[in-house]
Amino acid sequence: MRLTSDARGVYPIAPTPFLDDGTIDTDSIDRLTDFYLGCGATGLTVLGQLGEAPKLEHAESVAVAVRMIRRAASLPVIVGVSAPGYAAMRALTHEVMAQGAAGVMIAPPNTLRTDDQIVGYYVQAVEAIGADVPFVIQDYPLTFSVQMTPGVIRRIAEALPSCTMLKHEDWPGLEKISTLRRWEREGAMRHLPILVGNNGLFLDYEMARGADGANTGYAFPDMLVDVVRLFGQGEREAAHDLFDAHLPLLRYEQQPGVGLAVRKHILHRRGLLRSAALRAPASPLSAAARAEVEHLLQRLARHDARARV
Amino acid sequence: MRLTSDARGVYPIAPTPFLDDGTIDTDSIDRLTDFYLGCGATGLTVLGQLGEAPKLEHAESVAVAVRMIRRAASLPVIVGVSAPGYAAMRALTHEVMAQGAAGVMIAPPNTLRTDDQIVGYYVQAVEAIGADVPFVIQDYPLTFSVQMTPGVIRRIAEALPSCTMLKHEDWPGLEKISTLRRWEREGAMRHLPILVGNNGLFLDYEMARGADGANTGYAFPDMLVDVVRLFGQGEREAAHDLFDAHLPLLRYEQQPGVGLAVRKHILHRRGLLRSAALRAPASPLSAAARAEVEHLLQRLARHDARARV
Amino acid sequence: MRLTSDARGVYPIAPTPFLDDGTIDTDSIDRLTDFYLGCGATGLTVLGQLGEAPKLEHAESVAVAVRMIRRAASLPVIVGVSAPGYAAMRALTHEVMAQGAAGVMIAPPNTLRTDDQIVGYYVQAVEAIGADVPFVIQDYPLTFSVQMTPGVIRRIAEALPSCTMLKHEDWPGLEKISTLRRWEREGAMRHLPILVGNNGLFLDYEMARGADGANTGYAFPDMLVDVVRLFGQGEREAAHDLFDAHLPLLRYEQQPGVGLAVRKHILHRRGLLRSAALRAPASPLSAAARAEVEHLLQRLARHDARARV
Amino acid sequence: MRLTSDARGVYPIAPTPFLDDGTIDTDSIDRLTDFYLGCGATGLTVLGQLGEAPKLEHAESVAVAVRMIRRAASLPVIVGVSAPGYAAMRALTHEVMAQGAAGVMIAPPNTLRTDDQIVGYYVQAVEAIGADVPFVIQDYPLTFSVQMTPGVIRRIAEALPSCTMLKHEDWPGLEKISTLRRWEREGAMRHLPILVGNNGLFLDYEMARGADGANTGYAFPDMLVDVVRLFGQGEREAAHDLFDAHLPLLRYEQQPGVGLAVRKHILHRRGLLRSAALRAPASPLSAAARAEVEHLLQRLARHDARARV
Repeated sequence: MRLTSDARGVYPIAPTPFLDDGTIDTDSIDRLTDFYLGCGATGLTVLGQLGEAPKLEHAESVAVAVRMIRRAASLPVIVGVSAPGYAAMRALTHEVMAQGAAGVMIAPPNTLRTDDQIVGYYVQAVEAIGADVPFVIQDYPLTFSVQMTPGVIRRIAEALPSCTMLKHEDWPGLEKISTLRRWEREGAMRHLPILVGNNGLFLDYEMARGADGANTGYAFPDMLVDVVRLFGQGEREAAHDLFDAHLPLLRYEQQPGVGLAVRKHILHRRGLLRSAALRAPASPLSAAARAEVEHLLQRLARHDARARV
Repeated sequence: MRLTSDARGVYPIAPTPFLDDGTIDTDSIDRLTDFYLGCGATGLTVLGQLGEAPKLEHAESVAVAVRMIRRAASLPVIVGVSAPGYAAMRALTHEVMAQGAAGVMIAPPNTLRTDDQIVGYYVQAVEAIGADVPFVIQDYPLTFSVQMTPGVIRRIAEALPSCTMLKHEDWPGLEKISTLRRWEREGAMRHLPILVGNNGLFLDYEMARGADGANTGYAFPDMLVDVVRLFGQGEREAAHDLFDAHLPLLRYEQQPGVGLAVRKHILHRRGLLRSAALRAPASPLSAAARAEVEHLLQRLARHDARARV
Repeated sequence: MRLTSDARGVYPIAPTPFLDDGTIDTDSIDRLTDFYLGCGATGLTVLGQLGEAPKLEHAESVAVAVRMIRRAASLPVIVGVSAPGYAAMRALTHEVMAQGAAGVMIAPPNTLRTDDQIVGYYVQAVEAIGADVPFVIQDYPLTFSVQMTPGVIRRIAEALPSCTMLKHEDWPGLEKISTLRRWEREGAMRHLPILVGNNGLFLDYEMARGADGANTGYAFPDMLVDVVRLFGQGEREAAHDLFDAHLPLLRYEQQPGVGLAVRKHILHRRGLLRSAALRAPASPLSAAARAEVEHLLQRLARHDARARV
Repeated sequence: MRLTSDARGVYPIAPTPFLDDGTIDTDSIDRLTDFYLGCGATGLTVLGQLGEAPKLEHAESVAVAVRMIRRAASLPVIVGVSAPGYAAMRALTHEVMAQGAAGVMIAPPNTLRTDDQIVGYYVQAVEAIGADVPFVIQDYPLTFSVQMTPGVIRRIAEALPSCTMLKHEDWPGLEKISTLRRWEREGAMRHLPILVGNNGLFLDYEMARGADGANTGYAFPDMLVDVVRLFGQGEREAAHDLFDAHLPLLRYEQQPGVGLAVRKHILHRRGLLRSAALRAPASPLSAAARAEVEHLLQRLARHDARARV
């Protein structure tokens, strides 16, 4: 099952579950995957930035990806293969594609500046991994310090037919979606699915601007699925009501650096992860932060029973 | 009236009002100042980053600051004097202090990296402006790319008695407040008022961590005043209810780059600014963005009548 | 006398002379200007990055520029007007152009990333200063963190007829010169004079690649003039011999941060500046550094008598 | 043979030799290693930034390092193990130490800003690789955007006994060496060998400031050995004469980005590498650049016969 340009819906970014001793928790991989399947995800992404990919050895990366690919047999699984060099990117790509991955996600290294450098980087990446491997552009300037204009995304999409999805995490990013969609309508650009990230912080208005769904790791992917569905059904105010109820917690989880610890803590509280452990380097949640998360969950539970954990 | 270390409450960051032709709109300065006075602000900051300070000529900067200082006679007014060199910083400081400013705010230039460079920058700034001028540290890494540890802030506070307030806009920043407050309790640091910025995005939990109030520009400073007051009265859940109702709009206004246009648009819709105009370089709000703001205001108005504009 | 696109030769970047107490040393401005005139400079640039421009108050900036403009009456004088906002840029531009400046130099703010942002910045700058004012692009990524491709420079030159010179300080930068010159030969771009900066560290090969001269502040501008002249006369090896003799010192002066102190020290030793003082913030030369400069001068004096100071 | 704190002399940074088809050229590894042994190197570093380490797959990295370790049996070999995560760093470290490496070199990730972050990074790195593995700090702000004060280096050296060497590539960096050496003399810091990098651009004065040698990749390591030896023998002017003769070429090779292609081209011309090929991403030398290198070699050959290639 290869990723195609009709991708849409919610592709959760899966965290990598660890036990308290730092070893990989395969039971939780299975539990999490089953949960994604059950709540209406249309795909999955593993080994993303928030999957703690750089903290895994190569063999671990392959093992985590393959276990999720097999467990989620009915869903396309995208594997993050960003690496400081093309050799490691190619090696991981070939292994996971051979094992049934649907495609790969590639973030730009934070040394890129000019438009030409960015386009050139993706051209060379495709030479490395092969033109037959569907790939996702990760456009996340807050983390990667690389700014892609709509024009650069179009140049990549035109130069590289295997470019199959945009993981859109620019901030601010609403006008970028509008521009890309306008170009599509005007025939100035082929259709590229746009799934939004950044923990879904602007999912509410991004859907109205023309996004095809979400590709992010918020600890309530079931809410993301509902919001995308409600927008699809035209129930816009209901979608906003649900989204707004989650926003205080979602914002808290979206904090740079500390956000992943919040996410894993909530997934642990929801019974999906056995442990909330991160691998070093990581800042564990303080007691105050844990109490704040409990408070946020309690307040959320008044509107959404899934927060009763 | 000099800024002192018992500062607390809400110091709105005032935008600089322009007419559609780009000239300064003094009537709106007065109207805005009266509004701040009326809604319970305990101070004001003018010529901040979002006051479009770099877009003003020197004489305009002085004129805007002085008009606000005179109009808000009962409140301390802090003037942003950040500049690429100490000469311009000193010149503006001396003029506004002579006209009654309560103190100045200084952001670090984005070339600073090491702890010593940051401390050294503030030491030299005080040599330039004079040790008798109260100053506010602006700690805003998202915009200035300068990261100050709690230890660096303590070093500045210890080295420079005229350091009188911290405008805290680190992100994530909750643990930083807790650390500074713990040091105060332990006697390891003198009291430095902490007023939070970043559009108030975490004001709800920052108050509980020990912040003394807000020093930011959200277009509903009256809400900020209420939230700070409710926390002071121990009505925590009521504070959260009000804050959460504003969060969808507040988040929208907090977007980098485009946020100021959103803020001015809302202040214009509230009747406080005659025009929502920004000076170049500026990205005006698209029609889609204006419609989104209207939608957010309508939804907010169900909870807070002040959003009925 | 307006800057035109037939500019060539050596435009020294003038430092701003201070007395030991930090006040401006007008006698040294005159002496320095006379020296530039006498040694064959074809133009001058004042208030550049290394002219300590940000350390001057507005009135001082105007005074320094005007004094040099008047003294160097027969030469075109370019004034650096880079500023954090267009208002200050416009104000300074209008004052110095009214006093006889030949044009202005504009560096990009270090927040610019994409090609469109860079081009847009210059378009708006010209709207601010007026389309009749000749301007120089300062392309100095090491200091400004802004990377301009040859294509971006061409876009600026095409969009803005008042773009009259490129101060080229990219590093590496040889291929950029070759590309721009190839486009000129092919008729794909109008002629834009390229004068090189970066203390002249690659002047030897930059001339062969097609540069029109130098626009930099090395403390021996008379050597730069000789090298440019020798290349013009086809005496390539003689040009290299002279350049190579200076390279150990030139490299030492090109160090970021400390370089300006080295330069002023040498100009003081040459009798051109009364004092080597810099305004704060500045790191004075250590005794070890001063001894190293003496050593470099002594070794240079074996090849170039002008280093006997 | 473990790296110890009496390291000194010249540790060349070895490039990774490739054949024209991009496969690893083991013959050239051997030839290069024999050359280093023959010209007086006192150690070697492999898989550094300029060893194209990120372009190698894990198994290739191990193979390259082990081949050089075995071939250079009498010399300590340091292996670059910088990685985006500690897992990969630990894996490579353990493999190469088991095969006889003398120690490892660790560069900081370019996201680090504050003093505490930098020290914390090395503390956690040592937890990952083991406190028994000697490690080298790579202090190279131009490439890594991380600025380490002398105080930070001292903190690392004090906190971590396995810190065994400083690869000093700060720029400007002369005062840093003087400060660290002064602290040593005053008993405020233990002895940490300082070997300089940055292609040796300031080796001449760095030796006089107290450096213990060079740890860099200039294509004439035999010159570096001579210069270090001459300084050791007190023949200072002879050392400068030799260094200055190489400076035009050395400066050319030190250009960011393109420099490695220059270096491999020269090593190829010297008969040490069978091919000058780099792995992608890489910018090959233009015909103009190759001609410039020839010209530089010819001019150098007048002073140093080793440049007759």
